[in-house]
Order: sequence, then C-alpha cells, then structure tokens
Amino acid sequence: MAINHVKVEIITIGDEILIGQIVDTNSAWMATELNKSGFELAQITSVHDDANHIIESLEMALKRADVVLFTGGIGPTKDDITKQTLTKYFNTKLVFDESVILNIEKLFSTRPNFVINELTRLQAMVPENCTVIQNQVGTAPLTWFEKDGKVIVSMPGVPYEMKNAMTTEIIPRLQNHFKTPVLLHKTVQVYGYGESILALMIKDWENELPDYISLAYLPNSGIVKLRLSGLFDDILVLEFIMNQQIDKLKNILGNAIVAFEDIPIEKLVGNLLKSKGLMVATAESCTGGNIAHQFTLIPGSSEFFKGSIVAYSNEIKTNILQVSADDLEKQGAVSQTVVEQMAINVRKLLKADISVATSGIAGPTGGTDEKPVGTVWISVSSAEITLSREFRFGALREQNIIRSTQAALLMLKEII
Amino acid sequence: MAINHVKVEIITIGDEILIGQIVDTNSAWMATELNKSGFELAQITSVHDDANHIIESLEMALKRADVVLFTGGIGPTKDDITKQTLTKYFNTKLVFDESVILNIEKLFSTRPNFVINELTRLQAMVPENCTVIQNQVGTAPLTWFEKDGKVIVSMPGVPYEMKNAMTTEIIPRLQNHFKTPVLLHKTVQVYGYGESILALMIKDWENELPDYISLAYLPNSGIVKLRLSGLFDDILVLEFIMNQQIDKLKNILGNAIVAFEDIPIEKLVGNLLKSKGLMVATAESCTGGNIAHQFTLIPGSSEFFKGSIVAYSNEIKTNILQVSADDLEKQGAVSQTVVEQMAINVRKLLKADISVATSGIAGPTGGTDEKPVGTVWISVSSAEITLSREFRFGALREQNIIRSTQAALLMLKEII
Repeated sequence: MAINHVKVEIITIGDEILIGQIVDTNSAWMATELNKSGFELAQITSVHDDANHIIESLEMALKRADVVLFTGGIGPTKDDITKQTLTKYFNTKLVFDESVILNIEKLFSTRPNFVINELTRLQAMVPENCTVIQNQVGTAPLTWFEKDGKVIVSMPGVPYEMKNAMTTEIIPRLQNHFKTPVLLHKTVQVYGYGESILALMIKDWENELPDYISLAYLPNSGIVKLRLSGLFDDILVLEFIMNQQIDKLKNILGNAIVAFEDIPIEKLVGNLLKSKGLMVATAESCTGGNIAHQFTLIPGSSEFFKGSIVAYSNEIKTNILQVSADDLEKQGAVSQTVVEQMAINVRKLLKADISVATSGIAGPTGGTDEKPVGTVWISVSSAEITLSREFRFGALREQNIIRSTQAALLMLKEII
Repeated sequence: MAINHVKVEIITIGDEILIGQIVDTNSAWMATELNKSGFELAQITSVHDDANHIIESLEMALKRADVVLFTGGIGPTKDDITKQTLTKYFNTKLVFDESVILNIEKLFSTRPNFVINELTRLQAMVPENCTVIQNQVGTAPLTWFEKDGKVIVSMPGVPYEMKNAMTTEIIPRLQNHFKTPVLLHKTVQVYGYGESILALMIKDWENELPDYISLAYLPNSGIVKLRLSGLFDDILVLEFIMNQQIDKLKNILGNAIVAFEDIPIEKLVGNLLKSKGLMVATAESCTGGNIAHQFTLIPGSSEFFKGSIVAYSNEIKTNILQVSADDLEKQGAVSQTVVEQMAINVRKLLKADISVATSGIAGPTGGTDEKPVGTVWISVSSAEITLSREFRFGALREQNIIRSTQAALLMLKEII
C-alpha cells in the first residue's frame, strides 16, 4: 500500500556554493534527517542572493512540494536579502519583535566579548505574518510561514545553527503539522561486480520486489551499494519483509556482499578488529599511507590500529621491512614474494596481530607490458595465514590508490 | 569594460543526493572550474530520476541560462532514465553507435575481468540528433545537444568520470562554442589569517583594484586563497597590471603569502624538494599517514618522498623510532622533545635529507586541561636545523588531521 508522503524542497541562498567556494554539506545533512523522519525530498536548489530568482524558485517549489526550507541569506549584512524578499512575497511588513532581542541577550550572556549593536538589533525586525522561532545558537531568528496549507521556513545557513534548528524545532514541528508515514532504508554493499553485471545477476529478484519497496544502485569506486527503501503503514511488517528480501539477495550474491549496513569499509573492518581484540599494522608502497590514513580518520582507531611503514623506496623495503634484496632484484617490487615479506615482516616488526601490505604501479609512469600501470599485489597476514592476490585497477593514479586501499581493507576483512 | 558571461546551470540527477547518502561535491568542483573558465553559474538543481521533473528543470534552466549541464542518471540500469528522457524531450530516437562500443573495448582491454555484456551494449544506444562524446574513463558516453543556440550536455555523475570529461572535453568545447573572453587568474595563498581579518588588512588595496579585476576569497582549512580574475582585451597589459597588484599585496602580507600559484601545498613542497634534490621522510602520529598520502597522490613522488613511519602507538615510537621511553613517560607523546626525536630519528632511519614529525590529540577524546583536543606538536628536521612548534587546531578530528598536515607541509617549506 503506497503512502503519499510529505514533499519537501530545500533552497540554499548565497554565492559561495555557486562560485565553488564551499561544498553544500548542509543539504545532504538535511536530506538524511528529513528522509529518516518520513519526508521525501523532491528537489534541492542553489541560487544567488537575488530577489527575483529567490521568488521564482519559491513559486516553482510550491507547485511540487508541501514544504519549502530556505537556508542562508539571513545575516545582518547588505548582501543578505532573504528576509526582505519573503516579506515582500507575503505582502507584509517588517515589525520589531522584542523576543528576538531577549534571545540574543541570553545568548550573549555567556560570551562576554559579544555586545548587541545596531546590526544585531536589525535581527529583531521580522515579517508581521510569520511565526518567529528563536535561534538557540545564533542571532538570526527562524521564520515560519503558512500559505494554502503549505509551510515555508527560512533558517540560517551556518551549519551548526541550521542543524540545531532542524533537530530541535523544524522537524518536530513539521511531523506534528503533517502526520508523516514510516520510511525504512536498508543498504547492502557489494564488491567485485560492476553495476551492469550486478543488475543482470539480481534482475529476477529486483522485478519481484513488492511495489512499496524500491531499489537504488549507488556505485562508488569498486563497491556498489544496493539501497532498499520501503514505505508501509506497519513498521514491524515492513522490517520483516525487507529483511526477507535481503536474505534472498544473500542467497544470490553470497560473499560478494561485504556489508549489510551503510558504513565505510574501513569502519566495518575497524569494528571487526575491535570486537575480536586484534591490532592491525600496514606496510604500504603504492597506497602510500592511505590505508593508515583511512583507519586513523576513525575516532578511537588507536584501539585497533598500531601503525604503518610506508615503504615508498626499495631501500626501506630492505632496510626496515627486511625484504630480501635478492627477491626485490629478481622478482621486482610488485610481486607476490615481496608483498608477502612486507606483510609478514611488518606484522612482526610492529608487533601486530594482523597486517596488510600493498605494492603496485600507481602510474602514470612505471608500467611495463608484463606489469602495466594499475598492477597491484596485496597481501594480508596473521599468525595463521598469509593470503596474497594480484589486481589490475587501470590507468588512473588516484583511482589505483583508492581501489588498492579498498581491496586491502576487504582482504583484511576476509581473514579477520 | 564589463563582459556578459555565458550563464550555465547544473542539474544533478539521482536519488543519492536527495536522500542524503552522498554530499554533492561534483557541483562545487564544476562551479570552480566553470568560474575559472569565464562562465557564470546561475543555479544548481538536484532532482530525482523522474522524467517529468527532469524536463521541468531543463525548461526552467533554459529560460535563464545558455548552457545546461546534467550529471548522473546515465548508468545502464533501470533506475537511470536521463538518456530516455532527453531522447523524448528532443523528439528523437535511440540509435546504435559503434564508436561507443569501440571506446568501451579499448577501456576494458586493460582490465581482463571486465567483459561487454548486454547492459554494457545498451550504453551504445544514443539519441540520434546529438553529438556523442566518448567517456575516456567509463562506459557511459556523453551526449551534447544544441537547441536555439543553447547547449545541453548529459554526463556521468561518477566524480572522476565527470572531472575527466569536463576538463578534457566539455569546458574546451564550450569555450570554443561561445568564444568566451580572455580571462586571466592569479592566485596567492595566505596562511595564518581568517577571512574577515584578512579582508580588513587588504581593504584599501581591494578598493583600489581596477574594475576589470575582481577578487574572490576562497578559504580552505587554514589557508585563504585570494583569486584575482582579470578581463581585458590586451592579455600582455592585463598580465603586467595583475602582477603589479600582486606585488602590492606582497608588501602588505609579506610572509603570510605561502604560494603565488594555485597548487596544493604538498605539490609546492614536492617541487621545491625535487628542484633541490632532497628526499623527505615523515614520522606521523596524529596525522596517521595523511602527509605520506598527500605526497604519494602526486605522480612522480618517488623522486622526493622516501617513506614514513606511522607511529600511532607509543610502542612504535620507542621501538622503531627510538624515542626515549623516559621522555615519552614524563613529557607525554604530545610534547616538543618527543616530536623532535621522532623527526630527527626518522630522518636518520629512512636515510632522508629532511623530515617532518607530528604528534597531537586529534580527538574527540584524549584531551586534558593542559593539552586540550587539537593540541599538536610538529617538528621538521634537516642535517642543519630542527624546528618545532605547538598548535591548537580545535575540537574536530578531521579538521585537526587536515590542519596538522597543512601546517607540517608549510613548516617543511620554511626549512627547504
């Protein structure tokens, strides 16, 4: 049974996104939170601080959506015109609202260097026909308008102000205003098949999905995420049926499914290592420290990551990692025997339980007919087992580094 | 002499942005490149894989802009409908294009596991009335349409495929098609001042810029790039005048200018090292291999980068880097003496000419009153000099890693 959900659009206002100065992380965050809360995002639009363009975007959005959320353009400086534009659009006027000043005074009471000046006082001028929602962490208030059953909200573009407002005020108010349905997402991550081969493999399964469950393919450098989205009136039934579908998928794809949740592979491996009390070390040639970097981006990684030898020169492979100079000479750095010695020796040297080593030709130069650019040997090693594989990742340097890192993490996962 | 810029709009197609699964970094990258190439971005729009909505967005965009760039939604699977939608919109039909298959065959020739199947062959079905542009790094071709003097392009959403296509094909073709004016950019990179303080420092200089030279502030984790863009009919005069302006800026900002070109700091340092014939090594605790990773992303980095010891655990600091256990115990890992020993010893151990070491509290936990999260010690060392500094980078883990990496690279630059 299909449910019509409440449609939302986001309009971000300001030049910084359009000149490429900042990446719009706000919209992605808002999209995640809105989806989790049962809303459907119909469109995201980024426009300049330009009154006509803002109005045009609003009118188009109101044709498609029930809710329009504006972010940005509400600072007190000259270039910010969202408030004036909405005031004109709703055919009203700006009036002084004492509650805004009281909120700012409360806010500034903990920050001795901040004083209310003329520009700050301008924040208290609000459109007469809107509901004013106080900004708990900033000076610009939020404004909530209703028109023909639809809701229009203007909020700050500063990320932590927007996040605070969305979480504590806007989403709860919207859920209350519209009675939102239940939406459930489940993601499995598949490795080793391109999008099109995968689509053929699961074609029959995909065609038999009930109409209240939809499927999306989300490819990302070697891994394809399959995301199931379900809409149903009973959350428990929906959960049960979606799990059934994922079980069927497991029967088809087997070990190609490397994760049943939507988390980065390095985090998945980190969690596995922690749960088994294992410490990992890396010996990196072609990945140049990127495996170590991915691990150490994770808070608390010192609980499972010991360290790394980035052996970019052969000298380090022989002197520090004790790789046989003879093997290095005869087999070359990109060979099974060298990468295995790197893996085994880094594990012993750094006193780790488990290790991974990479050696390959990242490019753009250094390839030969026998070992073209993109040839990578990876080895994982524990006290019990040492497993090595050769890969061919193609001609692009950055892609080679990313894919080698990913393959190394997945081989680690195999032997943990 | 004001010149009317060619207006461009970006429409990204696909669910992944609208459900918040990915952050739209493509659009910011495209915006930067388009601006640099003399185009003006009027709007960015993100829509679902929905035919009506795609058409509606296209029609609106064509009212405002001269060029509409679609990204995404051109994979071979069922959920991707951009190609079908544009075929219908342009009132044409899909025809088989052999050149697409030849391109894919060439692409797959280096990747033995990839075979052309039924779905891959579908990529060769293209709208009859468009110009097909081959995708040099992926299977989905680009399609270029012209209508009433306007240009509509559909390209892949996979970031490296999009970037390759924009750089090698789309921007040059657009510049050729619209005969865009001569535009000259000069960038200086400033370290150590926030955007608003910097703006005050150079206010007078900025106000006196001739009207054919515009200034953009592009802040990026600790560094602010100041980009001067000049439009003039005589390129030699323009170059002369812009260099004069940059000389004036040098008088104001002095050593705060860390680069006079728009290249990543790691590349700048790499070039300097190469030109002096020096090899660098790193000993990384809080940066966890990221300095090594940034160096090794650069093609040819083996000419200046030797390797790294990622000493995430104290054991590696003492056993491998020979840091005094007593100092580690008494001063703590985040201290001047420890980070200096790391720098000096990694230089000797890896037989490098110059080295950098980092040790800090990346967070979110591990901070104390005396050494809060964000406290980082960095040391650079050569045979002649060892230079160490303490930094406070704040509470965010990822920011701490990025800023520590940046500070380490800039300290290296100082002593090279």
